[in-house]
Amino acid sequence: MYKVEIGKRILSKNEEYAAKNSRLLTEQRKLCLNMISSPGSGKTTILTRTINELKGKIKIGVIEGDIQTDIDAERIRATRAPVVQINTEGACHLSAAQVSSGLEKLPIGDLDLIFIENVGNLVCPSAFELGETGKMAVLSVPEGDDKPAKYPAIFAKSKVLLINKIDLLGAQTQVDFDVERVKADARKLNKGIEIFPISAKTGKGFADWCGWLLKAVEELR
Amino acid sequence: MYKVEIGKRILSKNEEYAAKNSRLLTEQRKLCLNMISSPGSGKTTILTRTINELKGKIKIGVIEGDIQTDIDAERIRATRAPVVQINTEGACHLSAAQVSSGLEKLPIGDLDLIFIENVGNLVCPSAFELGETGKMAVLSVPEGDDKPAKYPAIFAKSKVLLINKIDLLGAQTQVDFDVERVKADARKLNKGIEIFPISAKTGKGFADWCGWLLKAVEELR
Repeated sequence: MYKVEIGKRILSKNEEYAAKNSRLLTEQRKLCLNMISSPGSGKTTILTRTINELKGKIKIGVIEGDIQTDIDAERIRATRAPVVQINTEGACHLSAAQVSSGLEKLPIGDLDLIFIENVGNLVCPSAFELGETGKMAVLSVPEGDDKPAKYPAIFAKSKVLLINKIDLLGAQTQVDFDVERVKADARKLNKGIEIFPISAKTGKGFADWCGWLLKAVEELR
Repeated sequence: MYKVEIGKRILSKNEEYAAKNSRLLTEQRKLCLNMISSPGSGKTTILTRTINELKGKIKIGVIEGDIQTDIDAERIRATRAPVVQINTEGACHLSAAQVSSGLEKLPIGDLDLIFIENVGNLVCPSAFELGETGKMAVLSVPEGDDKPAKYPAIFAKSKVLLINKIDLLGAQTQVDFDVERVKADARKLNKGIEIFPISAKTGKGFADWCGWLLKAVEELR
């Protein structure tokens, strides 16, 4: 009984900050996407390529969540996009309070779109609202096409799913991955989800993905 | 203050079960490895191939932890090894109590080695002792060679590191992954860690890995 109350109090503190972030983003009409995936699915590479593809069209800022190190923030910084690094020091997800302090440090008035790169973890971050406009799942081809079935929460909650590393598909490399199975399983969980197969390495699929982003930002203006 | 006490009480309940599991495994002289990795690194494929390679030499049982589904347990069952499925129903790691009930359901007296396949998550499971003989990390090549630096906890705590999907290395596929960097970074965190590059798909590296397992089981006899 008591434990439930403690749980509620902690959750509501996160929800308070999430509501605060959401108000700020809505008032300022900014698109904010919370990227969630396993470690190594290519989140940072997707971001650097997306930022470079959209240079001169929209202004993008990044909140980088990592357990430790600022390796990823350095990679974002090389694109000259504004970036704030948050180290969770062991925690398995970003909290809304951390994102709130991240938003304060970004030049938010100058930006059209803020990406939150969450800690690499397909499970926990999906349970914590950050006040984002929408969640965005990344699944990379070598992780296997059974992931929507086995880790349904993030696929059920996401606005967008990027299927990354499609350069590994095909006869040359023999990664067994059925893109259609992933699409079908994700849509069973989440009818309206947008799905873009991409290669952050080669740029394949980025025209569609970046086109969708541009449209989403336009709609907010 | 109060929150800390609650935290302690929960932890010590897990520790009590972990101690119980550890006593059981030690008394019965069984090797028990707790496999931890991101989703899709190939844990189940490693297990099925390991079980098949060691057939007739040692007897292996498996405790399968998944958030949902029994896809993985079915794959283990096909090898005819005894397997117990535990569904965590959303939880991001196995608890020692769950493993305790899993051990009760396995024919433990007949087994030499028990693998615990933890929930796919590189972060949370490393914080929960299950009473295992040792932890075993799996990192697959497409996840990238920066993972020991970015997710140090599991690499620091593991007895063994399997670097899987080495079939994706080399000129044909162009996955950028520096095996030597991973070895050096993992050993900086954990001097005595055993490291085996393997391909659970092709079987490359399995002679060394299974040889090490056999030796570890022999030492307990």
